[in-house]
Amino acid sequence: MAEIYNTIETPTLLLDAARAQRNIARMAKKARDNRLRFRPHFKTHQSAAIGEWFRQAGVSAITVSSVAMARYFADHGWDDITIAFPVNLREMDKINDLAHRVRLHLLVDNLAVVEFLSSHLTAPVAIWIEVDAGYRRSGVLWNDDSSLAEIAGRIVACDRMELQGVLTHDGSTYAARTYAQIADAYTMTTSRLNQARHRLMEHGFLQLELSTGDTPACSVLEQFGKVDEIRPGNFVFYDWTQVEIGACTWDDVATVVACPIVSIHPERREVILYGGAVHFSKESLRRDDGAQTFGAIVHLQNGGWSAPTPGAWVRSISQEHGVVHAEEATFATLVQQIEVGGLLGVIPIHSCLTANLLKRYLTFDGESIAMASIPA
Amino acid sequence: MAEIYNTIETPTLLLDAARAQRNIARMAKKARDNRLRFRPHFKTHQSAAIGEWFRQAGVSAITVSSVAMARYFADHGWDDITIAFPVNLREMDKINDLAHRVRLHLLVDNLAVVEFLSSHLTAPVAIWIEVDAGYRRSGVLWNDDSSLAEIAGRIVACDRMELQGVLTHDGSTYAARTYAQIADAYTMTTSRLNQARHRLMEHGFLQLELSTGDTPACSVLEQFGKVDEIRPGNFVFYDWTQVEIGACTWDDVATVVACPIVSIHPERREVILYGGAVHFSKESLRRDDGAQTFGAIVHLQNGGWSAPTPGAWVRSISQEHGVVHAEEATFATLVQQIEVGGLLGVIPIHSCLTANLLKRYLTFDGESIAMASIPA
Repeated sequence: MAEIYNTIETPTLLLDAARAQRNIARMAKKARDNRLRFRPHFKTHQSAAIGEWFRQAGVSAITVSSVAMARYFADHGWDDITIAFPVNLREMDKINDLAHRVRLHLLVDNLAVVEFLSSHLTAPVAIWIEVDAGYRRSGVLWNDDSSLAEIAGRIVACDRMELQGVLTHDGSTYAARTYAQIADAYTMTTSRLNQARHRLMEHGFLQLELSTGDTPACSVLEQFGKVDEIRPGNFVFYDWTQVEIGACTWDDVATVVACPIVSIHPERREVILYGGAVHFSKESLRRDDGAQTFGAIVHLQNGGWSAPTPGAWVRSISQEHGVVHAEEATFATLVQQIEVGGLLGVIPIHSCLTANLLKRYLTFDGESIAMASIPA
Repeated sequence: MAEIYNTIETPTLLLDAARAQRNIARMAKKARDNRLRFRPHFKTHQSAAIGEWFRQAGVSAITVSSVAMARYFADHGWDDITIAFPVNLREMDKINDLAHRVRLHLLVDNLAVVEFLSSHLTAPVAIWIEVDAGYRRSGVLWNDDSSLAEIAGRIVACDRMELQGVLTHDGSTYAARTYAQIADAYTMTTSRLNQARHRLMEHGFLQLELSTGDTPACSVLEQFGKVDEIRPGNFVFYDWTQVEIGACTWDDVATVVACPIVSIHPERREVILYGGAVHFSKESLRRDDGAQTFGAIVHLQNGGWSAPTPGAWVRSISQEHGVVHAEEATFATLVQQIEVGGLLGVIPIHSCLTANLLKRYLTFDGESIAMASIPA
């Protein structure tokens, strides 16, 4: 362990493989117990090697967020793939190529896309109508009866498109901070998704599946109601946002960025890290005390890393710098444990964006796990 | 032009080469007129090809933000390089390798680093004492007399280190919104940098240079006082932050991201773009009306792109989605100009972070300019 840390020169994404595998096993079991299809979102890890851990947990269907990512995982043996992003017509050739190779699932939320697909698809695909259950990103509004019916009608009129069901992503659970808030958000979202299905049934579109499942809801709930499929992604690593939401505890978090310490400023109780927006992106949260935080601080130690240090956080980041600020008592201890040239660990606010930037994982065995080399 | 836009499948960084070259020429002339060394920061573009445009404008000394970036540009013929980030001791071998190859300038702000360098440097380097003139990131406080003297003393005691001067980055101009605010910030910063030099002179350290120069100050000021070197970087492309600061006008901005339109939601006057945090990072600004914006909207058209559309902006981004919101009158026009499958242009909030994510530029000639492939 110590030897591995000695090899680190620049900001490095550490991966606790045992925790990630535990997170996968736990979610896979929960899906099995609820007789749900578990279609995990692979945008978080973007790695064929980590994908194999899911396969060992019985996963055979996956979610990705881009055509390029679908191609990457198709190249690595995955043959049942949902691209959980509205169809980008400009990639029609690549979509057709994929549709010939794998069981491809696409999301549509407007007639223009469905009509284009009708005339351009060269192989069968499964189609999900994306429903906006109130999150206001993509999707047909759950109660927009005429749009739902019109889109569904156009889908079933094309023999290359099989209407699979209705699907939503509930980003609203990310604003939750208690179990009750997550449960309420989930209940509201799935109720609306069910309403959309019901409207479609009344128009004669039967046997439609429901797909949902953000990481907060999938992590804390034990029962999922009338849902057929869940698609969480972030849970494989979790991050500081999920800790703050209450979706996990700090010792479920499987990734930390090891950041070289380049300067220590006792007069303002700050430590300057090599670790900035090109490593973490610029996601932030508000602490309970109102301060903005770009990451939580841990010590790297034998067997992994410590619990987060409550009185210290990354208060700002620029392109390469991270500035750690600490409360008085915390700093007094911290400064005795660190030195310029040493390392501090940062739990990222958003592990998906951090992994997407760092492109590589270092495990405690010293293994370097590559991520897909996908153009942005 | 239109043909080039037709080739775009996914979010693509467009580069107006003529504007970038004009930005370079203008800044190079300003430095010459003021008899300043122009040491532009190459972290913005990270591209050897764009570096050549600077060379044609007479630039021979550059700034970078990492050892890896220094190696990349050294490999492309640059031999006078400042790494404008506190020395990371964990990269000592690579620093020594560079010091043997080029005239290498390093920043120090603490004794631990200077002592480590003293015992580990194997080739001569130029050393700048980084001064914190109030920005509170890295640097020795400008009025910390004893630290300044102690660090300088230790530098000159080592024959591999040549004390070059004092250097600062004034990030405070990024909070400015008027010429007067930028000028005041610059005056305060350079005054403090001069005070630091004066203190060092009183301790017997003579002939020290002053290095400063953020993009806002370098863009709007015509005179620079007692400064020897400026190191702006962002000005080569500018971005929406610089427009908001008043450091440039919209038609100085040389990069725009072409984003595929994947959905249009007239009921909430929103357009869903393929273009999210993995393309833009997550930098945002507040508009005058208090709304948060992740980018300004332009139309792609013959010869480039339009003026920004005042009543439309990217109101939120997630990993891949960008949500454009428009005021009522703006949307009525906008919706007639766009279609699903078409493109909208987004002026990034922070071009450095956007370029760092997109890794490649598409010029109006259809040329694809690669960026350094540097591990984060």
